[in-house]
Amino acid sequence: MGTSPETEHPVKAFGWAAKDPSGIFSPFNGCRATGEHDVQLKILYCGVCHSDLHMAKNELGFTQYPMVPGHEIVGVVTEAGSKVEKFKVGDKVGVGCLVGSCRQCDMCDKDLENYCAKQILTYSMPYYDGTITQGGYSDIMVVDEHFVVRWPENLPLDIGAPLLCAGITTYSPLKHFGLDKPGVKVGVVGLGGLGHLAVKFAKAFGCTVTVISTSVSKKKEAMENLGVDEFLVSRDPEQMQAATSTLDGIIDTVSATHSLFPLVSLLKPEGKLILVGLPQSLEVPIFPLLIGRRAIIGSAIGGLKETQEMIDFAAEHKILPDVEMIHMDYVNTAMERILKSDVKYRFVIDIAKTLKAE
Amino acid sequence: MGTSPETEHPVKAFGWAAKDPSGIFSPFNGCRATGEHDVQLKILYCGVCHSDLHMAKNELGFTQYPMVPGHEIVGVVTEAGSKVEKFKVGDKVGVGCLVGSCRQCDMCDKDLENYCAKQILTYSMPYYDGTITQGGYSDIMVVDEHFVVRWPENLPLDIGAPLLCAGITTYSPLKHFGLDKPGVKVGVVGLGGLGHLAVKFAKAFGCTVTVISTSVSKKKEAMENLGVDEFLVSRDPEQMQAATSTLDGIIDTVSATHSLFPLVSLLKPEGKLILVGLPQSLEVPIFPLLIGRRAIIGSAIGGLKETQEMIDFAAEHKILPDVEMIHMDYVNTAMERILKSDVKYRFVIDIAKTLKAE
Repeated sequence: MGTSPETEHPVKAFGWAAKDPSGIFSPFNGCRATGEHDVQLKILYCGVCHSDLHMAKNELGFTQYPMVPGHEIVGVVTEAGSKVEKFKVGDKVGVGCLVGSCRQCDMCDKDLENYCAKQILTYSMPYYDGTITQGGYSDIMVVDEHFVVRWPENLPLDIGAPLLCAGITTYSPLKHFGLDKPGVKVGVVGLGGLGHLAVKFAKAFGCTVTVISTSVSKKKEAMENLGVDEFLVSRDPEQMQAATSTLDGIIDTVSATHSLFPLVSLLKPEGKLILVGLPQSLEVPIFPLLIGRRAIIGSAIGGLKETQEMIDFAAEHKILPDVEMIHMDYVNTAMERILKSDVKYRFVIDIAKTLKAE
Repeated sequence: MGTSPETEHPVKAFGWAAKDPSGIFSPFNGCRATGEHDVQLKILYCGVCHSDLHMAKNELGFTQYPMVPGHEIVGVVTEAGSKVEKFKVGDKVGVGCLVGSCRQCDMCDKDLENYCAKQILTYSMPYYDGTITQGGYSDIMVVDEHFVVRWPENLPLDIGAPLLCAGITTYSPLKHFGLDKPGVKVGVVGLGGLGHLAVKFAKAFGCTVTVISTSVSKKKEAMENLGVDEFLVSRDPEQMQAATSTLDGIIDTVSATHSLFPLVSLLKPEGKLILVGLPQSLEVPIFPLLIGRRAIIGSAIGGLKETQEMIDFAAEHKILPDVEMIHMDYVNTAMERILKSDVKYRFVIDIAKTLKAE
């Protein structure tokens, strides 16, 4: 699949890559030239997403090794191609999960590049030129300007990075499915990187927010620090029974296999259970769907226009991820902690200061 | 649950009831008085729905024996309560799956009595007065006029009966989810009582219709008699692969456990798989939902306003179920044949001519 970046391009990039399905990261040299519609970035910060680990271990089956992950990328433009219109050297910018799409299908026409069948993910996919895309655990990066968002002046560069995946992944379904108004009751399942941002966006929209969790241990944090309105323990039948048919929508961020039965019962008629995590398959109860025209819907990130809108909204409403800043060489430990859900709520790598060439 | 109809009401009705979970039907005396908002009907015809059998065998767990089933009821008004406004003696009318709802919740306000949490099904549910509702395998019936539809003059009384459940069950999701326009590509799974009406309505809307079936045996019938545009055998991987991402929506009428994986893959991005059958639970693939914002949605019959609209549309466009007319005492044999899918496509009982008192 494509030629090696080292032989193809004259511009050197240096990052940390997974080199086999062990998913262990180590230093790696890659590169990519700046085309006429491209900008080159100096990467400053990059968030660590659970899917970086899924991909590092080839759990989705399409990983191309060596693979430099990272799709919550904040940087500064260091070079702009001759036909670049939106950016100039020195601009602060972000890059999320996408770096390409067909630009001519129905989905692309509707600014939904995220649902284009020919979308190119930020890492581990063949690019137009046949090379394999590489992500943000790297010093520099070259991206078509269409897939770059402008970073608002008052949004912190470091802790804002996770908005580019975790943020848009939760903002998009809240907006698209009308879960963005005062009076609307929104449930959030899974209080991790995605879940805590779902709560923050829903609260900013004026919604009443209920967190549904398997354990009561997160209740204090959810109520006190995130301002959640209600907290339901999904294993408590009495609590769940009392909340039957009360929610307009639920954002389910859980990637592990879990039961949807108790969640569907929380939905009002015409309520929507929106899955943004990546379990392989789940068993779905049919009767409660039928008797209330309830829906189970998947949602994945957002288009570029909506990503810019989300970033601007976050800046205006001061919605910031809760993060733990780490050094590049801490990434393997960070991955072990992610597996144990031992992070509140997102790791961000300080690329510019801590990525050292070999 | 409620007093016995025999002791409560002065008006006698005679029908066939299931008396235990064997689901075998035999003659039964029931009754119900005409209230001020009620009409009394002489029942002429009643369709036989698969759910009559599910209920007769208590497969949904809430059957109240003895139970007279039947919710595709066509009749003529024989008595009208003092406050009845829409109907007079002699009017031809239909009654579907609902005879009551709360009339004041959000769903009732939106003419979606079918999603009211307090809806009262036509048979085997406690009515306002505490008696248990009884359905259309009976000579007479008393119903609140709100739950009665006017039968169009040019719509046959006999073969039109199945529109009241099978018809509205397929019409409603086609309309609600925008699958009612020329150019829209609609799939139909399961070519039975519901499926053949889904095809007829979708064709009347101008849609391109694909039937998806486990076996090629129904192809000739589907293409030649129902005018289906395409026929896919779901067990043929090549055919299914070629049809990937081509459908805007699918109406899945299958009540048995079946795989949704091949069906979801047929949907375009933002496509909707609408379940109108009643399997207990189904395994759902998550990745294809996420990467296309695809939805799995339940839908159950329709509200009264939409049922009237559907009946009027059917009359105007001459959409008629394909039925086999039967005598009342054939009903147990009919149920055996339904279990073997040995009917094209719906039985209708000629109640007026063949229901004989003991």
